Amino acid sequence: MILTVTLNTALDVTYRVPALVPHTSHRVTDRAERPGGKGVNVARVLAALGYETVVTGFVGGPTGDRLRELLAPLPRLTDALVRTEAATRRTLTVVDTAAGDTTRFDEAGAAVTSGEWTAFRARYAELLPGATAVALCGSLPPGVHVGAYAELIRAARAAGVPVLLDTSGEPLRRGIAARPDLVKPNADELAGLTGSRDPRRASQDARRRGAHAVVTSLGPDGLLAATPDGLWQATPPTAVRGNPTGAGDSVVAALLAGLTDAASWPDRLARAVALSAATVASPVAGEYDAAVHAALLPKVRVTEETP
Amino acid sequence: MILTVTLNTALDVTYRVPALVPHTSHRVTDRAERPGGKGVNVARVLAALGYETVVTGFVGGPTGDRLRELLAPLPRLTDALVRTEAATRRTLTVVDTAAGDTTRFDEAGAAVTSGEWTAFRARYAELLPGATAVALCGSLPPGVHVGAYAELIRAARAAGVPVLLDTSGEPLRRGIAARPDLVKPNADELAGLTGSRDPRRASQDARRRGAHAVVTSLGPDGLLAATPDGLWQATPPTAVRGNPTGAGDSVVAALLAGLTDAASWPDRLARAVALSAATVASPVAGEYDAAVHAALLPKVRVTEETP
Repeated sequence: MILTVTLNTALDVTYRVPALVPHTSHRVTDRAERPGGKGVNVARVLAALGYETVVTGFVGGPTGDRLRELLAPLPRLTDALVRTEAATRRTLTVVDTAAGDTTRFDEAGAAVTSGEWTAFRARYAELLPGATAVALCGSLPPGVHVGAYAELIRAARAAGVPVLLDTSGEPLRRGIAARPDLVKPNADELAGLTGSRDPRRASQDARRRGAHAVVTSLGPDGLLAATPDGLWQATPPTAVRGNPTGAGDSVVAALLAGLTDAASWPDRLARAVALSAATVASPVAGEYDAAVHAALLPKVRVTEETP
Repeated sequence: MILTVTLNTALDVTYRVPALVPHTSHRVTDRAERPGGKGVNVARVLAALGYETVVTGFVGGPTGDRLRELLAPLPRLTDALVRTEAATRRTLTVVDTAAGDTTRFDEAGAAVTSGEWTAFRARYAELLPGATAVALCGSLPPGVHVGAYAELIRAARAAGVPVLLDTSGEPLRRGIAARPDLVKPNADELAGLTGSRDPRRASQDARRRGAHAVVTSLGPDGLLAATPDGLWQATPPTAVRGNPTGAGDSVVAALLAGLTDAASWPDRLARAVALSAATVASPVAGEYDAAVHAALLPKVRVTEETP
């Protein structure tokens, strides 16, 4: 199975309003709830692709109960979340139907106690031996130390499980020093880490800092992969318009699937670009359009570059 | 005791953000929850003023449980809400700290079944004999017939309990025909009902339609009362700046208190204007500033007018 870790889960709520007008009142015409947090989104995509997936991290309160209720019916997805005293946060996305654009409000994460962190470490240690790959995704909630991802990466490496890190800021910096197999920053996160706006140079810098492979998302230009086997760029055949929410999570899901299948780097990147574009094409945030995915997969251009 | 009815209760959530920028992401810096719905707000003010108050209406789901949890510690306030299968709605107010202004999102109300309406009618009938006054407040949730307030007004009159109606649109029109003791529309609601923008003429029209007394809020200009005993206007000594949220609910609370104390109309109106201004002056939406209230009360100007 593939294990995804989401320490800062969320119940994602979506409000639809005819038009967002600041400093007025709005009648919410449609309301939807989804289990959220990067690793949870990655797991949902993996399960939809047909991979056995286990979700761990923290969940608490009535919002946490609701999140688990929404995960329960998903095939191939197992809930191994650890309970917290504090309630899981919400995120709210307001969809402006007229503008077709979204406005987002993120609540602060639920604080984690040291006892809860210890319980999570034990759960994580139990789950690692059964995993073909593990992904550590998203921000750290209050109460979890900034070196937490570095700690989890060392445990995965000790267990011989390939580990992917998808976070930003200081947790990314500390995590990379613990030598993860793969990191997936976007261009901004990579620049923040290395100080360089040149993705090629910045990727090589990140590898020198400890990451074995670095896959950087270049937005509509696709992905750049700096790996021990070489440097590749994968580009979608056409620019896909739509809702980019969840596109990065789909890249992570495809890379984990490729890792599990021991696919070649060009194959992994083609899958990641196609799945990401299929996610942008889907009207529902975080879901992917299977037809678009199948149509794009053979058309993604992967070119090997000279470092 | 004073009974307030809120058929469309809500859990009022407030998000504070540094500045609201449509179509971007926001970190919520502060989150607060309050029990909501007009009649619930009226009851909280009455209890704070020292009056024994009973709250009835509908509540359901985890949001309903949370609403009751927030009501429980309030002194002099008794929870006589009736459970629904559907979950109580939320309202969200986003406070833009920079602009000091608010943007509101109202979820649709939870649907009420015919069995739940019957259960409520029985609870209401049990509570009426113990009430010195009853207030019917706010909008009707889905599943409750548009003549519901008229039905509840007839029951109150049959029990000899003075009844105040604070709603709008067709429920107000139907309710007035059932001859409530008092209605409290604002100038827009009154114009919508009568077609006249002249509050004096519109108030008399509303009385001809069945309301014994009509108290119309004129915003910063205070209140106009058309009653069987005469016509009065009550004006605050100075324009109070602040957050108008809950000012109308404070007017209703003061009018109910005046009814219970059998106070004269000028006295009731002075209290209502002072309490409303004290609510605008309070930084917290729906709370009132007791010092401002005490300072303004003797200064409110009440003049009798010729109809």
